[in-house]
Amino acid sequence: MKKRVVILGSGNVATSIALALNDKCEMVQIYSRTLANAQELARKVGCQAISDLRNVAPDADVYIISVKDDAITSVVDAVPDNGALWLHTSGSTPIEVFREKRSRYGVLYPMQSFSKSHPARMSEVHIFIEGSDSKINHEINDIASLMTCNVHQATSAEREKLHIAAVFACNFANHMFTLSSEVLEEAGIPFDAMIPLIKTTVAKLDSMTPQESQTGPAARGDQKIIDKHLASLNGDKQKIYKLLSQSIMKRK
Amino acid sequence: MKKRVVILGSGNVATSIALALNDKCEMVQIYSRTLANAQELARKVGCQAISDLRNVAPDADVYIISVKDDAITSVVDAVPDNGALWLHTSGSTPIEVFREKRSRYGVLYPMQSFSKSHPARMSEVHIFIEGSDSKINHEINDIASLMTCNVHQATSAEREKLHIAAVFACNFANHMFTLSSEVLEEAGIPFDAMIPLIKTTVAKLDSMTPQESQTGPAARGDQKIIDKHLASLNGDKQKIYKLLSQSIMKRK
Repeated sequence: MKKRVVILGSGNVATSIALALNDKCEMVQIYSRTLANAQELARKVGCQAISDLRNVAPDADVYIISVKDDAITSVVDAVPDNGALWLHTSGSTPIEVFREKRSRYGVLYPMQSFSKSHPARMSEVHIFIEGSDSKINHEINDIASLMTCNVHQATSAEREKLHIAAVFACNFANHMFTLSSEVLEEAGIPFDAMIPLIKTTVAKLDSMTPQESQTGPAARGDQKIIDKHLASLNGDKQKIYKLLSQSIMKRK
Repeated sequence: MKKRVVILGSGNVATSIALALNDKCEMVQIYSRTLANAQELARKVGCQAISDLRNVAPDADVYIISVKDDAITSVVDAVPDNGALWLHTSGSTPIEVFREKRSRYGVLYPMQSFSKSHPARMSEVHIFIEGSDSKINHEINDIASLMTCNVHQATSAEREKLHIAAVFACNFANHMFTLSSEVLEEAGIPFDAMIPLIKTTVAKLDSMTPQESQTGPAARGDQKIIDKHLASLNGDKQKIYKLLSQSIMKRK
């Protein structure tokens, strides 16, 4: 029998999970504070959209909370415990957010950079899980395994490290691409010229550590070039160039 | 008739250029301050290795200086002009470094992150050139075209912007991978777990700008998570996390 699932949230992670579970579970409701957002996702998976937590169906098997971290507690508090399995999907909120508020609970953290327009292939995503006890662990593992083979156990402390590591490797690396595109724009050069170089950088990770493969003025200790580059930058790009060059030089 | 080429330098860029020109030109000499380094590259292209600039052959057609930027001038000054074509390969040293010291000169800047163990396929590299006059421009274009079809004209000012953009997109993005691996190491998780996520981030660049595809706590304005992450970091990783989060939030 298919598990009955309510998704509380309609953002990038909620969307990826709802789409990945859609065939394998019975989707019951999508909740969002903004009804239009709930409706957009509910249409895709063919279920009810709600925008009032008082209307959350009490009879589903699994409730997946996938909202901004600082809204998780208010969602938990607004809905009474019904004995079902309650999960959140956050890298950085500990499992304790449910303690004494739910009887069966845990975390299902898909480590990926999700975006609505590029829903990740969940089958390739690594999911890190943590349950309130070992029986719950198995239940969460069963749900995660519907989406991917890459399911791992991780404590809240390990999960936070993973999340921080992902912010560096993904969000911050991507911000370097944004800053690069701003510099090129000033010279009227399209960002496309940079993409082969970025792909080479990433391809090296298959056979070398990033520390081993580092190149450039800071890795060479070429202070003259660093100073020239700093002189032609300003604002936060200048501050970032300086701090990152120091950070690279410290590790050589 | 094959052009006779001397390479002054034996680092990553010098190695990639020497290997790419080896079939198409006659390699005459490899110079390095450290004879063993000159010998290593000279063996690969079958020519003489030298470590004393007084022994540079006076009768080659092209001299390519590919040393650290702050050593370019001392190389130029140590060898008298012989009327041949003199080039450097630096993104951030202006063409003026040759002025009044050479009669025929220019720049051949291959925009790529080179490493000896991963020599770039030069045929995929974009090369930006600048000559002391339009005739020299054509000569440099002929040499660059032996290595790649992607040859572009760029002034010294444009080239510096390109170099800065490459430092952000390649060296600094790669440093984010290093910091990520350090965070994972603390939790005993191998960096491999992060590679699918990095590849997804880069794949998005084919269809979206990096600004459009940005995700994560700073892009969501999730200050609670940012503060938690900052509290569990220290040293330069903490400073970098803070500065980059501010920089991302400023652009939202």
